[in-house]
Amino acid sequence: MKKTRLTCRPVTFERNFTCHSAGSVLIKQGNTWVLCTASIEERVPPFLRDTGRGWITAEYSMLPGSTSTRKQRDSKSGRPDGRGIEISRLIGRALRMAVDFEALGERTITIDCDVLQADGGTRCASITGGMVALADAVNLLITQGTITTNPIRHHIAAVSVGVCDGKPTLDLDYIHDSTAEVDLNVVMTEDGRFVEVQGTAEREPFTDNTLQELKQLAHKGINQLIKLQKKSLKEG
Amino acid sequence: MKKTRLTCRPVTFERNFTCHSAGSVLIKQGNTWVLCTASIEERVPPFLRDTGRGWITAEYSMLPGSTSTRKQRDSKSGRPDGRGIEISRLIGRALRMAVDFEALGERTITIDCDVLQADGGTRCASITGGMVALADAVNLLITQGTITTNPIRHHIAAVSVGVCDGKPTLDLDYIHDSTAEVDLNVVMTEDGRFVEVQGTAEREPFTDNTLQELKQLAHKGINQLIKLQKKSLKEG
Amino acid sequence: MKKTRLTCRPVTFERNFTCHSAGSVLIKQGNTWVLCTASIEERVPPFLRDTGRGWITAEYSMLPGSTSTRKQRDSKSGRPDGRGIEISRLIGRALRMAVDFEALGERTITIDCDVLQADGGTRCASITGGMVALADAVNLLITQGTITTNPIRHHIAAVSVGVCDGKPTLDLDYIHDSTAEVDLNVVMTEDGRFVEVQGTAEREPFTDNTLQELKQLAHKGINQLIKLQKKSLKEG
Amino acid sequence: MKKTRLTCRPVTFERNFTCHSAGSVLIKQGNTWVLCTASIEERVPPFLRDTGRGWITAEYSMLPGSTSTRKQRDSKSGRPDGRGIEISRLIGRALRMAVDFEALGERTITIDCDVLQADGGTRCASITGGMVALADAVNLLITQGTITTNPIRHHIAAVSVGVCDGKPTLDLDYIHDSTAEVDLNVVMTEDGRFVEVQGTAEREPFTDNTLQELKQLAHKGINQLIKLQKKSLKEG
Amino acid sequence: MKKTRLTCRPVTFERNFTCHSAGSVLIKQGNTWVLCTASIEERVPPFLRDTGRGWITAEYSMLPGSTSTRKQRDSKSGRPDGRGIEISRLIGRALRMAVDFEALGERTITIDCDVLQADGGTRCASITGGMVALADAVNLLITQGTITTNPIRHHIAAVSVGVCDGKPTLDLDYIHDSTAEVDLNVVMTEDGRFVEVQGTAEREPFTDNTLQELKQLAHKGINQLIKLQKKSLKEG
Amino acid sequence: MKKTRLTCRPVTFERNFTCHSAGSVLIKQGNTWVLCTASIEERVPPFLRDTGRGWITAEYSMLPGSTSTRKQRDSKSGRPDGRGIEISRLIGRALRMAVDFEALGERTITIDCDVLQADGGTRCASITGGMVALADAVNLLITQGTITTNPIRHHIAAVSVGVCDGKPTLDLDYIHDSTAEVDLNVVMTEDGRFVEVQGTAEREPFTDNTLQELKQLAHKGINQLIKLQKKSLKEG
Repeated sequence: MKKTRLTCRPVTFERNFTCHSAGSVLIKQGNTWVLCTASIEERVPPFLRDTGRGWITAEYSMLPGSTSTRKQRDSKSGRPDGRGIEISRLIGRALRMAVDFEALGERTITIDCDVLQADGGTRCASITGGMVALADAVNLLITQGTITTNPIRHHIAAVSVGVCDGKPTLDLDYIHDSTAEVDLNVVMTEDGRFVEVQGTAEREPFTDNTLQELKQLAHKGINQLIKLQKKSLKEG
Repeated sequence: MKKTRLTCRPVTFERNFTCHSAGSVLIKQGNTWVLCTASIEERVPPFLRDTGRGWITAEYSMLPGSTSTRKQRDSKSGRPDGRGIEISRLIGRALRMAVDFEALGERTITIDCDVLQADGGTRCASITGGMVALADAVNLLITQGTITTNPIRHHIAAVSVGVCDGKPTLDLDYIHDSTAEVDLNVVMTEDGRFVEVQGTAEREPFTDNTLQELKQLAHKGINQLIKLQKKSLKEG
Repeated sequence: MKKTRLTCRPVTFERNFTCHSAGSVLIKQGNTWVLCTASIEERVPPFLRDTGRGWITAEYSMLPGSTSTRKQRDSKSGRPDGRGIEISRLIGRALRMAVDFEALGERTITIDCDVLQADGGTRCASITGGMVALADAVNLLITQGTITTNPIRHHIAAVSVGVCDGKPTLDLDYIHDSTAEVDLNVVMTEDGRFVEVQGTAEREPFTDNTLQELKQLAHKGINQLIKLQKKSLKEG
Repeated sequence: MKKTRLTCRPVTFERNFTCHSAGSVLIKQGNTWVLCTASIEERVPPFLRDTGRGWITAEYSMLPGSTSTRKQRDSKSGRPDGRGIEISRLIGRALRMAVDFEALGERTITIDCDVLQADGGTRCASITGGMVALADAVNLLITQGTITTNPIRHHIAAVSVGVCDGKPTLDLDYIHDSTAEVDLNVVMTEDGRFVEVQGTAEREPFTDNTLQELKQLAHKGINQLIKLQKKSLKEG
Repeated sequence: MKKTRLTCRPVTFERNFTCHSAGSVLIKQGNTWVLCTASIEERVPPFLRDTGRGWITAEYSMLPGSTSTRKQRDSKSGRPDGRGIEISRLIGRALRMAVDFEALGERTITIDCDVLQADGGTRCASITGGMVALADAVNLLITQGTITTNPIRHHIAAVSVGVCDGKPTLDLDYIHDSTAEVDLNVVMTEDGRFVEVQGTAEREPFTDNTLQELKQLAHKGINQLIKLQKKSLKEG
Repeated sequence: MKKTRLTCRPVTFERNFTCHSAGSVLIKQGNTWVLCTASIEERVPPFLRDTGRGWITAEYSMLPGSTSTRKQRDSKSGRPDGRGIEISRLIGRALRMAVDFEALGERTITIDCDVLQADGGTRCASITGGMVALADAVNLLITQGTITTNPIRHHIAAVSVGVCDGKPTLDLDYIHDSTAEVDLNVVMTEDGRFVEVQGTAEREPFTDNTLQELKQLAHKGINQLIKLQKKSLKEG
């Protein structure tokens, strides 16, 4: 039986990991590694044209070699990867909550989250790392003089919590995740408000008490992650 | 400004709505109408073969005429409908929590949720109506003598709650939904445990207090829906 | 051996079945139920732009639960449903013959025919029901003052006829259809002219005498159906 | 105004046009050229396995350079070519009526009809030419001793007829076709029975008298085509 | 063991093979037959708009009946034909080297290469035949007065060479090709310069000496082919 | 004008870069970074079943953020990425030449080459890095005792050479590549034999002299790369 954990796994952000994107961050959270790149395009989806407002979108994918059993590419399987689409939508929705679209102006930032190595919590690491890539892209816009007001309203980060062997556990790795009775992903702002809460019973429906315990543990993890994000961005 | 609502919209279940499926339920929840059919197949996905265990899966789709602006069919748009895939996965996951797969035996029940008319809350209505179609399919298996133990562990139902104009509101219709500041979908068992909790900040991150208020309102709505499910199933 | 039939199955039209479309008709022809919705868009295909002329198009699909063996969705099977495409084209072609495109003006009406329950004759019921949905959509345009001349040139309806056990039979249900030696689908105007005639030998090529007999029987059925269409439209 | 025609355009069959297929026929009907190849596979679709019965299927496609405006390939357009699918189904259905599947034995013959040059009537030329390719493939099976009874029950051929400028016209070329008021495709056996009749009003619904006239004209054309098929096959 | 060959197989060009395309050439090189059609469109890809420069693109496909085992159509297999895509790109790249895009003006010529019968060397025959179809299309533009300067800079042709049973062999047919130890495709101009060289070890890596021998043999074959191209174009 | 280069860019191999694959190598060649993972599956394609022989296949893809303008994912563009398919085929073909399939036994090794950062020469770096990942995977099979004979027949590596500003240049980066007059990709064994030679005229056909010069330069680069591969593998 794997031990429960009450703090996050070690987390590092390698900023400017690759050279072509406005933001490029390799987040390593334990053995989960996600390359998050932020690309800026000077156009917006049709429903935003001529509104002066910008947009954030995200795409999530796992490299074939990121898992212990090789993962087939979407383009080969011939059918959409439902899980990947669901996670892409979550990341985009979450990061949009961090941004003031008027300050961003009529442009789109796309956050690509490509999992190089998976060991649980890839969607949360994508959000936490994507936040840093987004901040770097936004800073580039400011440095270039393209925008004058920082459109980042507040930092957000995400973490998974769960009940493993009856005990609340923070930042589930793959072994935790595959044995968890409850799985809760929380996206939160730096001031402790919720951006997204997704709790799923894996084996058995769970009580409100469990939900309360898990939320508190998640809150603690998020605080830790946001501190690390900010520290990393200052080192720039 | 639309008034808030603290009870569910009127809900009816028309069982045996169509004649070919093992279960066929037209749920009408206000102006949201979803046709939920349950089909039984005597085979399971590869990972379950020769385990003696069954499976539940679900597919969700909106008819082109179900919305005020005609919705293009997936097969025409040429790309997957991300929202539809995300909702299909949620429905399947939720209904699997209602079933004892050993009692079901090695067979698959597919719940098809086709929205005939949409007015908010279609994913929740699909789960609530799909539960009744699933119960009917399972009862058919029992009546036929195919299985002897009822694999339904407990009823589940789903409801959306949100904050509209600053006030908690139950069972959001389209107008509520499109103006909600927070949107929470809750799937719960008849004994008040959570199967799934999905809360999303739509305009502004939300506090834990808001989450608490919304959960209680959802609980009230779920109780109301499960009573109606059971009443409908007794009338059979 | 199933008895032959010389009149149509009972037919009803539930107009305004759903609330969002310009026309929405649930046609029930025996156990064949098709939801026909008509949606108006203020644009036409490229080849008609700036001609002042409108267009009618149709899409046909069967819900997964509409047949006794669950029908896989197009979006899942990964390849086009040839039969569905062929029927969509037939419905569109047939309904276009009912309309004066100059009177309609430069707009497109899409007729969606979604089979809720199938028991033979779904393509014909789609045309017959689609005609009523089309009439309702056109009436809405007139009521709104968008157009002034009624673009409906004449009513059309469709019926299948066949030879079952050596005898001509009207309005084939599934059991008739699957044993028919000849299958003829006829689309006709209210003044008895042909819009489409599609006769197919199922077991054995058929003689001109058979074709004559079947045409007469179809004519009788069409008259019956057009009377019911008009009666239903007067009740509105 | 193009003159009406009361006989078929000149028709030739170049048998053994290519060398790899069991049957390979280039039919030239006026300026419509279709390469029809017949391929034999020693397997049948799932629904026929272990029945001892064979199958005929067909695929129709137009080369990009076959029309005056280049036709995009299916594989490039990214969506199914509805017209091509409809015609493939017609050809397969028609040719199946020519064959005794028990005599053929449990194997599939695929008739590929690739239009090299189009000038109206490509679907009918595909059937007429495909019949000859099918006969050649079947003769090969007999010569090889694979089967002993000839599975060809009777020859079939197809022709289009129409009303152009008010007058019945046989074997429509592209200019006839694009101005026809009525378009009728007839597939018939050598003894004058119908395999398929598909009549479509192009501008105006048509009367039963018109249908009678057109059928007779088609019958005359079919007789001419079947004579040419048989003559060509004797020359082998 | 098949004998080696030191001259090209017999080659003929049937120009104006079909009537609708600006260029239409059936090249027969031994038993390899490819129909090459050239279609002119008065538009260019986005990256060339408003540059005054034209474009050449190519598409390669094999008819299902062109090979001894029937080849499934792309549109049926549901996944891209990698080999076909690779060859299409090669043909386009090669033919672009023959053209002065400013003299061509802002239009696209598409070369469709459809293999009617395959016996090795289809990609090379497509380039050699496509060159003639391209020349015919360009001559049409000149004859019509659309362009005044001939945009053909020089003729190009292609041939495959290989080592079979240890000996260099020119213009590999299918049997040669399937036993070749080395396979080299060469595209060359009339003045002996290289447009494309693609050498592949099939069984064993090959030495520089082998490469030298093969290049010389290819050069000889190309000279022969370009003479035949020019002779054919003079006959027009 | 960028200076020509007569040695390879600095090259490093980070072996065991990720932890789940049998081989995982991050090759950095200048600013071109490719993650090459090798995955072993105990099955082979149908044509090799029960032959006792194994298979090598490869897939190449660029991450969206790997280029200065974001590259759309295949799964989003809805059509195959022709260039990617062509390169995947090249990598697979090249690496197969390095392996004795009988010694490998009936299993497949898939080499995934995912470009993290692109600066020219990604296909060659994929082959050179893929060779090391392949060697690591094969060594794992030996260490595990699954196979006893090393199936690596010889090392291979690949390099691009070109003519830039009239001068031969080794290991083209993006700026070299986009201005090159000739582009030659060479895959070679450690004993100086060719596995693949692909030369393409980019602006102007090239002479045999140029080809000779480029081959020699490539040979020099390959020697350098193979030494580095071997050094890296010894460090393990």
